Amino acid sequence: MKSYSSKLLENAVHELCRLPGIGQKTALRLALHLIREDRSVAEALGNSIIRLRNEIVYCKRCHNISDSDLCDICADPSRHSDILCVVEDMRDIIAIENTGQYHGLFHVLGGIISPMDGIGPGDLNVESLVERVQSEGIREVIMALQATIEGDTTNFYIYKKIRDICPHISTIARGVSVGDSLEYADEVTLGRSIVNRLPYEQTLRK
Amino acid sequence: MKSYSSKLLENAVHELCRLPGIGQKTALRLALHLIREDRSVAEALGNSIIRLRNEIVYCKRCHNISDSDLCDICADPSRHSDILCVVEDMRDIIAIENTGQYHGLFHVLGGIISPMDGIGPGDLNVESLVERVQSEGIREVIMALQATIEGDTTNFYIYKKIRDICPHISTIARGVSVGDSLEYADEVTLGRSIVNRLPYEQTLRK
Repeated sequence: MKSYSSKLLENAVHELCRLPGIGQKTALRLALHLIREDRSVAEALGNSIIRLRNEIVYCKRCHNISDSDLCDICADPSRHSDILCVVEDMRDIIAIENTGQYHGLFHVLGGIISPMDGIGPGDLNVESLVERVQSEGIREVIMALQATIEGDTTNFYIYKKIRDICPHISTIARGVSVGDSLEYADEVTLGRSIVNRLPYEQTLRK
Repeated sequence: MKSYSSKLLENAVHELCRLPGIGQKTALRLALHLIREDRSVAEALGNSIIRLRNEIVYCKRCHNISDSDLCDICADPSRHSDILCVVEDMRDIIAIENTGQYHGLFHVLGGIISPMDGIGPGDLNVESLVERVQSEGIREVIMALQATIEGDTTNFYIYKKIRDICPHISTIARGVSVGDSLEYADEVTLGRSIVNRLPYEQTLRK
């Protein structure tokens, strides 16, 4: 047990350590940094964290993280509302938005099918996707999941669910290196993979 | 400019990014982690950060970070009160305490002399060190600064200030690799370097 000579410091280090990828030494460095900085810095950080967790909601339509019932993207009338891009979580939305290549709406699954982690189709926002495709007159669904076995499995599951009700189903081009997470792809590669998307049937033949 | 679809999230990411070593992607990962976790996690973290900065004080005697006027180490009657270990900041105290090899008191300089960074002797707690050596009947001062040019310069400056009023002045053995920061030394090496400390005059001859 490390002795920090201060319960306040010990507390802050303990809490910072619970964040993913932050160990004891990093937590201590962050805490000492906050002590040296102006009081307003620690207050702004602490309050932004508390408010984030207490006030955040999910978009009722696409399940994106939002400040209100409808997220900025769903509420934007200039977006193409007959095309949906299916993503795993909101980090993928940010990545795709940054390419500037996509102007439709999104649908956040909240994960991908992964039997190893005990995540089945029932844990994902698939039912609401099917409903949206039916009720919103969706012309095309673009599947933008990670290029892994789990991503492919999820693609196939969704494909079977909507092939009869959606005229076009595509996946983003495999410009993204196979086995890599979407989050780390560079913007050019990710942008091209959206432009060069392929009909889903075509990807099955390979 | 990245679009996060939520001002709350944008705010939290912005504040997390101001921490040293935390970039945009890491900040976003941390924020999303907090959203997924229980509400109490974000509240405990946020409050511990705010309380840390608002309520922390420095020990009036050794300048260590503390919850009260006198830190736990200075207030501990079982410590040897006639021996002082001079360190740069409180991370070094934690490192030395973890070796279990030292039972005296500390004195935190708050930095080291570094003309390149504009830090001179006047910015450090040197005057109070001289006062302590005189008034507390200090028998030995151990200098435990980093093994760099700046550390050596600071050692020499302090040596000149106290050589006439302190019977024994030593530096920790250079078991710590030269050029390395104290914080990253393993406990055995750091512990041995305290046991094998050398009279300061002896280090000048080399």
